Amino acid sequence: MERFYNAAARVVDDALESLAATTAVRVAEPESGLRILIREDWDRTRQGHDSVAVLSGGGAGHEPAHAGFIGDGMLTGAISGSLFASPSVEAVLAAIREVCGDAGCLLVVKNYTGDRLNFGLAAERARAEGLDVAMVIVADDIAIADAPQPRGIAGTVLVHKLAGFLAARGDPLAEIQGRAEALAGRLVSLGMALRPAAQPGQPAPARAPELGLGIHNETGTREVAPESADDAMNEVLTPLREALSARGSDAPWIAMLNDLGGCSTQEMGVLAASLLRQLGPASVSHLIGPAPLMTSLDMHGFSVTLVPADDTLVEALAAPTTAPGWCGLKAVSPAVTFTPDTHREHEALSESAPQDPAVAALLRAAITTLRDARDELDALDAKSGDGDAGASMQSGADAVAAALDTERLDTRTPAPLFAGIGQLLARDMGGSSGVLLSILFTATGADLAQGSDLPDALVEGVVKLQAYGGAKPGDRTLLDALVPAVEALARGETLASAAEAARAGADATAELTRAHAGRSAYVPESALEGVIDPGAEAVARVLEALTAAAR
Amino acid sequence: MERFYNAAARVVDDALESLAATTAVRVAEPESGLRILIREDWDRTRQGHDSVAVLSGGGAGHEPAHAGFIGDGMLTGAISGSLFASPSVEAVLAAIREVCGDAGCLLVVKNYTGDRLNFGLAAERARAEGLDVAMVIVADDIAIADAPQPRGIAGTVLVHKLAGFLAARGDPLAEIQGRAEALAGRLVSLGMALRPAAQPGQPAPARAPELGLGIHNETGTREVAPESADDAMNEVLTPLREALSARGSDAPWIAMLNDLGGCSTQEMGVLAASLLRQLGPASVSHLIGPAPLMTSLDMHGFSVTLVPADDTLVEALAAPTTAPGWCGLKAVSPAVTFTPDTHREHEALSESAPQDPAVAALLRAAITTLRDARDELDALDAKSGDGDAGASMQSGADAVAAALDTERLDTRTPAPLFAGIGQLLARDMGGSSGVLLSILFTATGADLAQGSDLPDALVEGVVKLQAYGGAKPGDRTLLDALVPAVEALARGETLASAAEAARAGADATAELTRAHAGRSAYVPESALEGVIDPGAEAVARVLEALTAAAR
Repeated sequence: MERFYNAAARVVDDALESLAATTAVRVAEPESGLRILIREDWDRTRQGHDSVAVLSGGGAGHEPAHAGFIGDGMLTGAISGSLFASPSVEAVLAAIREVCGDAGCLLVVKNYTGDRLNFGLAAERARAEGLDVAMVIVADDIAIADAPQPRGIAGTVLVHKLAGFLAARGDPLAEIQGRAEALAGRLVSLGMALRPAAQPGQPAPARAPELGLGIHNETGTREVAPESADDAMNEVLTPLREALSARGSDAPWIAMLNDLGGCSTQEMGVLAASLLRQLGPASVSHLIGPAPLMTSLDMHGFSVTLVPADDTLVEALAAPTTAPGWCGLKAVSPAVTFTPDTHREHEALSESAPQDPAVAALLRAAITTLRDARDELDALDAKSGDGDAGASMQSGADAVAAALDTERLDTRTPAPLFAGIGQLLARDMGGSSGVLLSILFTATGADLAQGSDLPDALVEGVVKLQAYGGAKPGDRTLLDALVPAVEALARGETLASAAEAARAGADATAELTRAHAGRSAYVPESALEGVIDPGAEAVARVLEALTAAAR
Repeated sequence: MERFYNAAARVVDDALESLAATTAVRVAEPESGLRILIREDWDRTRQGHDSVAVLSGGGAGHEPAHAGFIGDGMLTGAISGSLFASPSVEAVLAAIREVCGDAGCLLVVKNYTGDRLNFGLAAERARAEGLDVAMVIVADDIAIADAPQPRGIAGTVLVHKLAGFLAARGDPLAEIQGRAEALAGRLVSLGMALRPAAQPGQPAPARAPELGLGIHNETGTREVAPESADDAMNEVLTPLREALSARGSDAPWIAMLNDLGGCSTQEMGVLAASLLRQLGPASVSHLIGPAPLMTSLDMHGFSVTLVPADDTLVEALAAPTTAPGWCGLKAVSPAVTFTPDTHREHEALSESAPQDPAVAALLRAAITTLRDARDELDALDAKSGDGDAGASMQSGADAVAAALDTERLDTRTPAPLFAGIGQLLARDMGGSSGVLLSILFTATGADLAQGSDLPDALVEGVVKLQAYGGAKPGDRTLLDALVPAVEALARGETLASAAEAARAGADATAELTRAHAGRSAYVPESALEGVIDPGAEAVARVLEALTAAAR
C-alpha cells in the first residue's frame, strides 16, 4: 500500500464523512448522490435573516478546499464534485436552494470551464426561480503569460474569507460581489512542484519539477531544477512580483504560502523563511500559512499568492471564523531578540572560596579511590556496557580535584559545596552519568540550602536522580548501592553502616541479570551474570574510602 | 533536489526563523547558539503576575512541536535542540530564568534519556537558584509492551494544552503539575508509518511499513502490511483500546489524529473517517486533528492518541489559544442530513402545456434546419474541433422536438418557453455546448419573467453566456453570429436584419485564425483558415430559417 486510502473511489466521500462528523454542517443525504455541505445553523427562512449566503465548490482533491472553509465568517456551504471534476448543475442548484434567502447568495468559482458552466447554469436557473444569485470567478494563476482563461488556484481561498466576512457583517450582495471581484482582480498566485499529484490507485506521473504546474497536474510554464528552497522560492516570487508591478500593485503585500499537499511542516517552514527573507519586511506585511489550503492530492509542491494589503482586506482576513481549514492571518515583524541569561552558570564556584581542611581531606580520599579504581571499573563496564565507566568517574574526580587545588570549591558550607560539585560534574565529567551525578549533587545542595540536614538532603537528591534518570533500585545501576546507603544515613546510622549497606547493594547487582535501565538494558542477560554494576561498585568504594578517612 | 531545504544544517534555524517572524515571540539572540523562543508579552517580573510559566522542548524535526505551541493558553516558551537531539542544560536553564516568576515554572518533557537529564538538571539548577520549577514527563507511546521507559510522543501536545489552560486561569504550580501528571498517566498513543523519516540530505531508510515506529525512526513493534486505510487504522486502534481497557479507562475518549509529516490532507481525512467509524460515536466524543502536531520530518505515517474525556480536559482542550500549531478540539456527532431540493428541476416543463401553433411552427423550422445541417456542421467541426458539433446540435433539436410533440413546452408564453428549452438543452444536449446554450435560454427566460421584452432579454442572455462561457466576439465561437444578431434586434431591427447580421458574423469567422476560447483554442492557426465556426454557422442558419418561416 502506497497511501492511506481505502478504495480509490471512496477517497472523496471518506474525507467528507470525517469533516461532516466533526464540523457543524448538514450534508445532502447520501442517496441523493450529491455532495453538498451546509452550515448546520444556517436557516434561509429565518425572520430577519439579512446575511448573504456564500457558496463555493468544484472538483475534489483540493482539501481543505472547499468544505473545510465552511463556518461562521467564511463559507455558508460547499458543493464537491469527484476528484478533479466539477459538481453537476443539479448539485449546485440544490445547494443554492438550500441556503439562499432574501439577502441572496454569492457563488465563488475557480476559473475552469466545467465549474464556470455548471455553477453558471445553476445560478441562472436559481435566478429564474426568483433567487438573487451572483457569481465571482477567480483566475489568479499567472503561470501562463497571456492565458485567455487563467486558472483559479489558491487565491480563491482569500475570496472565500473576504466574502464570508462581508456577509457576516451584513453587507448586501451587490457590495460583496463588487469587493470580491475587486479582490479576485488583484490576486496573483503561482506554484511549483517537485513531483506532480498521484491519482488514488495510480503512480504519480513521471515529470520533472515544474514551475506553474496546475492543481490538476495541468502543464506548467516550464521545467525547473531548483538547487535549494531559496532557489525554488525565487523562481516563484520573481514572476509574481513582475505581475504585481505590471498591475501597479505596490507593496506592502499579504502573502499566502500554500502546501500543495506533499510537503512536510519543516519544508514549509524553510520555504516561509525564504519567502520572508526574499520579499523583506517592507514588502510583506502579513503571512497566511504555511498550511495546506488548496492542495492537489499529494503533489510535492507549494504555491504563493500575493495581494496588496488594504485595511478592509486585512480586517477581513484577520477576523475569526469557525471554518476548520482556515489557518489565520499573521502579521510579519522583525524577530525580537533577548540575551539569554547564562552568566550564573558557575556561581557556586568562586575564587578564594572558604576552606575546611577536614572536608577537603575526605574529598581527596574519594578522589584517590576513584582514580585507583579506574581500570577495574572499566573492566566491569566492558562486560555490560561500553567500558568507559572508570574513565568517566575519573574525569569527574579530576574536575573536583582541580577545583580543590585552586580553592574554588567552598568546602566549609555544605550547600555550595554540593552545588559546586554538581556544576563541575555536568561540565567536565560528560555523558549521561555526568548529568545524572550532577543532578544528585545539585538537588542535594538545593535541599541543604533550604535548611535540610545532610541525610534528608541526600534522600531528596536520590529522589530526583530516580525521577530524572528513570531507574529504580533493582535496575542494576548505582542506585543499588546508593539507595540503601542513603536510607541508612536517614535512619540515623553511621557512615560505616551506610558504607556496609552500599557494599551489600553493590555485590547484589551481580545477581541481577535483567537490567531495566541504563546501558546494560541493551545487553543479553547471560552476559551480566556474576558481574557487579560498575556504578554501584564506585559508590560502595567511595563510601568505604570516606569511612576510612573519617576515622 | 528531493526536498525544499536549503543546507541540511539550516533546516531547524530556517523553520524557527519563519515562526519567529510571524508569532509574538522573542528569541534568544542567534550569537548565543541557544534556540529559545518565549512569548513576547511574557514578563516574569510584572507586579501581580500570578501565572505559572509552561515550557517545553526537545529535539527538532517534530514541528509544529514545540515552538508552534507557544501562545496565550498554551506554552510560555520552547527550547529546541538540533534535529532529533535534546537541547543543552544551559539552554533549558536560560529559558527557565527568562520566564520563571513568583508563580513558578512547569517543564513538560517527552520521555527520552537526553531530554529527561538535560531538562532535569536545568530544573535542579534553577531550584538551587531559588526558582520554583516542576517537571512532568510524558511517556504515552504504547508501542513496546512492558517498555521500562515508554517514549513520549504526540500525546505530549495535550499536556501542553492542559497545562497552558490551567496556568492561564491562575492555578498554582503544584495543582498544574498534579493534573498534568494525571493526564500524562492516562494518555495512550501509537503510530504507524509506511515510510520512515529522511534526515535532510539523506535518503529515507529502506524499511517495511511498521507499527509503533518512534518519532526518531526508532524500531517499532513489528512490520505490517496494511491493505487499506481501514486496515491500518485497525492495527493502531486495537492495541490502544487494549491498553485503555487494561487501565480501566472507559469511553468516551478524546482522540487525536496526528500526521507524522508525510500524509496528504486527503489521506488524513480518510484515516479520520476510518477512526470515527471504527471507534463509533459512543466511544469517541471529540477529535483533535487530523493535523500535523508532533511530526517526524517527512515520515509517511500517522499516530493516534486516546484519552478518557473528562469535563476539565474537554474545557482545557476546547479553550482558545493563540498558539499557531494548535488545531482545536472538535465535538464528534453523527452527520445531520437534509434532502436536497431537486424536485423543481423540470418545473418549466409540464403536462398539457398551453400551445401556440405559430410559435411551435417556428421552432419546428429551426429544428428541421439543425437536423438537416448536422453533417455539414460536423464536417466544419472536424477541421477545428472533435467533429461532433452537428450531432450535438441535433441532440438539442431532437429534445425540443420531443417536448413539442408531447405538448410539454408552453409555446404560448415566452418566459416558460425559454426556461423550458434551457432545461431540455442542459439535460439532453450534453457537453459544454449544451450547458452554454442552456445558460442562454435560461437567462433569457428569467429576464422575460421579470418583464423585459424579448430583444432585451436576449441581450441579457448573451451577457450571461459570455460571462460564464468566458468567450467574447472575435474568439471564433457562436457569439460571432449571435451577438450581432441580438444587437440588431435590440436596436429594433427586423428578424431578417438580425439573420443577415448573424450570417455576416458567421462568415467572418473564416478569417479568424486565432481562437481564444472553445475547443479550437487548441488547434494550430493554419488549420482554421477559411473554416467557418460551426457554432456560428448553426446560429446563422437557425435565424435564416426563422426568418423564412415567419414570412
